[in-house]
Amino acid sequence: MIKAPYLLFIGDATDKLSIKMAQGAVDWSPDQCLGELSVAGCTVTTGLPQISIAQAARMGAKSFVLGFANSGGVLDAKWHDVIKQALEQGLDIVSGLHEKLTDIDSLSQLASNLGRQLIDIRHPQQSFKTGTGEKRSGKRLLTVGTDCSVGKMYTSLALEKEMQAQQLDADFRATGQCGILIKGMGVAIDCVVSDFISGATESLSPDNTSEHWDIIEGQGSLSHPAFAGVSLGLLHGSQPDAIVVCHALNRSHMRGLPNSQFPSIADTINLNLQAAKLTNPNVYVAGIAINTSSVTIDKGQEICRAISQEFNLACTDPLRDGVASIVNHLHRAPTKAITANTDSAIANRSELAAMVKRA
Amino acid sequence: MIKAPYLLFIGDATDKLSIKMAQGAVDWSPDQCLGELSVAGCTVTTGLPQISIAQAARMGAKSFVLGFANSGGVLDAKWHDVIKQALEQGLDIVSGLHEKLTDIDSLSQLASNLGRQLIDIRHPQQSFKTGTGEKRSGKRLLTVGTDCSVGKMYTSLALEKEMQAQQLDADFRATGQCGILIKGMGVAIDCVVSDFISGATESLSPDNTSEHWDIIEGQGSLSHPAFAGVSLGLLHGSQPDAIVVCHALNRSHMRGLPNSQFPSIADTINLNLQAAKLTNPNVYVAGIAINTSSVTIDKGQEICRAISQEFNLACTDPLRDGVASIVNHLHRAPTKAITANTDSAIANRSELAAMVKRA
Repeated sequence: MIKAPYLLFIGDATDKLSIKMAQGAVDWSPDQCLGELSVAGCTVTTGLPQISIAQAARMGAKSFVLGFANSGGVLDAKWHDVIKQALEQGLDIVSGLHEKLTDIDSLSQLASNLGRQLIDIRHPQQSFKTGTGEKRSGKRLLTVGTDCSVGKMYTSLALEKEMQAQQLDADFRATGQCGILIKGMGVAIDCVVSDFISGATESLSPDNTSEHWDIIEGQGSLSHPAFAGVSLGLLHGSQPDAIVVCHALNRSHMRGLPNSQFPSIADTINLNLQAAKLTNPNVYVAGIAINTSSVTIDKGQEICRAISQEFNLACTDPLRDGVASIVNHLHRAPTKAITANTDSAIANRSELAAMVKRA
Repeated sequence: MIKAPYLLFIGDATDKLSIKMAQGAVDWSPDQCLGELSVAGCTVTTGLPQISIAQAARMGAKSFVLGFANSGGVLDAKWHDVIKQALEQGLDIVSGLHEKLTDIDSLSQLASNLGRQLIDIRHPQQSFKTGTGEKRSGKRLLTVGTDCSVGKMYTSLALEKEMQAQQLDADFRATGQCGILIKGMGVAIDCVVSDFISGATESLSPDNTSEHWDIIEGQGSLSHPAFAGVSLGLLHGSQPDAIVVCHALNRSHMRGLPNSQFPSIADTINLNLQAAKLTNPNVYVAGIAINTSSVTIDKGQEICRAISQEFNLACTDPLRDGVASIVNHLHRAPTKAITANTDSAIANRSELAAMVKRA
């Protein structure tokens, strides 16, 4: 339904994290991206060349992708004109915002007149049942995070790529708009009616062959005051055999909430294992993925080594150093899991925590 | 918007828990309920006299309330005819199902032709923001449960009634369709888009005077594989100062899931306190409410006394014995809280657990 190639519109974004939909498409579907368009005031870039709508149309662009996100997900009316220009140049519009393009009369009417599509990829077309918690066949891995936007989708995509390279049967399951844009399918779990969070997640990774892995993209964090409910429903519905804990260096508070506390990696492991056991008592931690982009490569590797020793788990920066170490761990089907009982032992060793914070 | 009095339609229900919307209206808004209507196969009753739609209309009924619920919340097409009869007799239709009456063309058209309302009380009309976790003024109490349908709404309404009788400033905040029917306002939290669970809950109990109590109706259970996400978002958004733990005797598995495990009261206390601390570090347990309707009054009181001693907390059946003991505890503003550390101590004392199970 989504036609490539894309022109990625990033508006007047000033926060690199807010253009993660555009950046994700560039990083994971580069062949589908022709260029980016921004306007005055924008201070970030995906790295693609700046091209106009007219240029993009001449180059064969089929879709104009709104590549930015904002808390609340409402489309600022100031973007209506640029969207209309894209429609008039023959492009479909792809949006991952909560507010539906199809609910905006002027856009809806113009698209209809021109025979163009308005594609609200965040809004599920299917209907869901409530969850059951019943055990499904096949294996599942879920990425979980200390916070939002710490690299859960990238880690999941890197895991799928590495597992497929190792001839393992693995499929990435998208749970957010960016993942859906990259894979062309999935369910934006934060847009599902809350009664169906777990049920929708169950339908996203149905029964499969015993050696098949679903690599399910995590959302939010159990420690985020706004989004923990989504994270918990996703965790229960995924019934993961394995979780991979994702973290980004240099965070001092939860994304968007300056007064919030940031959880430790140990807290995150314990909270997630405790909750995950409700639908899979054998859940284990397969590894830790750290976004070290805020420090040098050497420093990042030093931190990953220290975390790996501390938790006796594979720890890596997926983009800089790959995820083979995590996949190898997974492949060996470890019987010994980090359990919630390690909490106090870990809490006493505060040096590492300080190191991660300072990095 | 909802006009009284009501005719309560309970269809062919065979499970008392499935007509809790009708029963709630009878128990808490008796003056607004004229009678009930059921059809062949129905084995339960609210206790109100059986009357026909025509009788109800003659008696002045203004609304035909769909007083049953089902998992999934879809309206069986077999009820379209009886709804049409009610419309033709001049009644509005009130539904608490997920599926919207206004989305069913034949009903929507007939209602429009006749000038009647189709009121989908589960579907929020307002729009919400994502949560912030910021501290709000005033006090909040949230009822939490070992399971769905264990008495959280009844306990909340009983607390409001008792607190108002004691001249305390307290307001019940409805989070489900039945509570909304009773109070005429609220937000059906399980029908909110999942990104906004906490944000919607925050808007439901805004800043208030320092001595004011919001008594927030809980939903689901942190131990329910289908609905824990809703419960967690509601807990974080409520930022409760106090929680009251609700439980019904004689449950062997989570509602609707025969293969699930049932949590202990101790588990439920610990899980909820641990999670609630994210947005209110001073949260405490104000008491335990037990639905003892499955045993004799004497046996119920014996069990409540045993649980009270075990946890050193007020424990009562709200309907049989009132909630004054809990409100008194609340009023004394206890400084000593049950904390998550009591878990192992409680787990070792298994006699009580066995007693509660056997009861």
